[in-house]
Amino acid sequence: MAGPTTDRRLLRGEETRRAVLRRAVEIASVEGLEALSIGRLATDLGLSKSGVFAGFGSKEELQLATVRAARRIFADAVLAPVADIPPGLARARALCEGWLAYSRTRVFPGGCFFFEVTAEFDARPGPLRDALADSARTWHRIVEDTLAEARTAGALRPDTDLGDLAFGLIALLEAANSQAVLHEEDTPYQRAGRLLLRLLRAEATDPADPALA
Amino acid sequence: MAGPTTDRRLLRGEETRRAVLRRAVEIASVEGLEALSIGRLATDLGLSKSGVFAGFGSKEELQLATVRAARRIFADAVLAPVADIPPGLARARALCEGWLAYSRTRVFPGGCFFFEVTAEFDARPGPLRDALADSARTWHRIVEDTLAEARTAGALRPDTDLGDLAFGLIALLEAANSQAVLHEEDTPYQRAGRLLLRLLRAEATDPADPALA
Repeated sequence: MAGPTTDRRLLRGEETRRAVLRRAVEIASVEGLEALSIGRLATDLGLSKSGVFAGFGSKEELQLATVRAARRIFADAVLAPVADIPPGLARARALCEGWLAYSRTRVFPGGCFFFEVTAEFDARPGPLRDALADSARTWHRIVEDTLAEARTAGALRPDTDLGDLAFGLIALLEAANSQAVLHEEDTPYQRAGRLLLRLLRAEATDPADPALA
Repeated sequence: MAGPTTDRRLLRGEETRRAVLRRAVEIASVEGLEALSIGRLATDLGLSKSGVFAGFGSKEELQLATVRAARRIFADAVLAPVADIPPGLARARALCEGWLAYSRTRVFPGGCFFFEVTAEFDARPGPLRDALADSARTWHRIVEDTLAEARTAGALRPDTDLGDLAFGLIALLEAANSQAVLHEEDTPYQRAGRLLLRLLRAEATDPADPALA
């Protein structure tokens, strides 16, 4: 029977879990998922190791939960803001610019969480690589779907290779993140912003489309 | 006085160092520079820990020596093959294609060594980040200089922004490496090959230049 005490205990468990994951995504975005340890998180947050362990059970579960938490934060920062923009080039451009802002404003202190941890696990088969490959495929599909809508709306040429265009846009975003974090410079974001406009203009039915001004 | 015994000992020291670094670049390209440890390298190579330690002195020295060793391997794989190609678009294109081949043939088992370890250290100030930032700047300068030679040769438009173009090309190469390693697919290399040709053609004085065919 769930009385008020159990409710409070459940609530506390949920709060602890959220606090642990908030700290875990920060650490992983700077140092990678291998740097996560139940002991370190307990120390950082002033919790007992058993308290943190109870929420996750193993290091791998903690790492997988951290990836899921990062996906939610990414969705709030990058996907939610474009949801109300009508399909078309304005939405495609806003999605790219929103991604650059997500990196530039350091939603994660180490820059893009997924860039950091994908480089860490891309060559190491296992559940973590699978989760990161799924995240990458989902993001690629979102960009490609956004471009497909723009083509359906008549804004992109019928022969545009949507897979290539999505690949090119994502390449520019990730390179901007990587170089901006490494050199602590803003120039890479500006270069990416100019180049992604050129990629979109080259495929637009109207290169003077106001969404690309 | 350096007699034959000392020579043999020096030679053995140099051979040990080379064997350690050969294994270290392999491990780091898959698991990162933090995964390097003197104990693990000694076990992997059947050497004593003190023998490995004598060659490097500290984990950070070992990591820095590993980055230098990877730069030499990269130079042999990517830079040496284009040295005899005359300056111009053919050389610029060969440099990009050579980079894709370097990733595709897994000169390092985890794909591009620098992609892996730069993501690991880009947000962590210190000698390792400095060494990686220097590697990235040097590579960016080589690409930009190669494009500058092509412009001087009259193959690129006088108003081409060489920094932007180098950034765009490098972005495509790195995204190809990252996605190909993550998804174990060849498609990203093909996408990057098509898109880099389009970036070069858009800036070429003759879009039908045979070097871009």
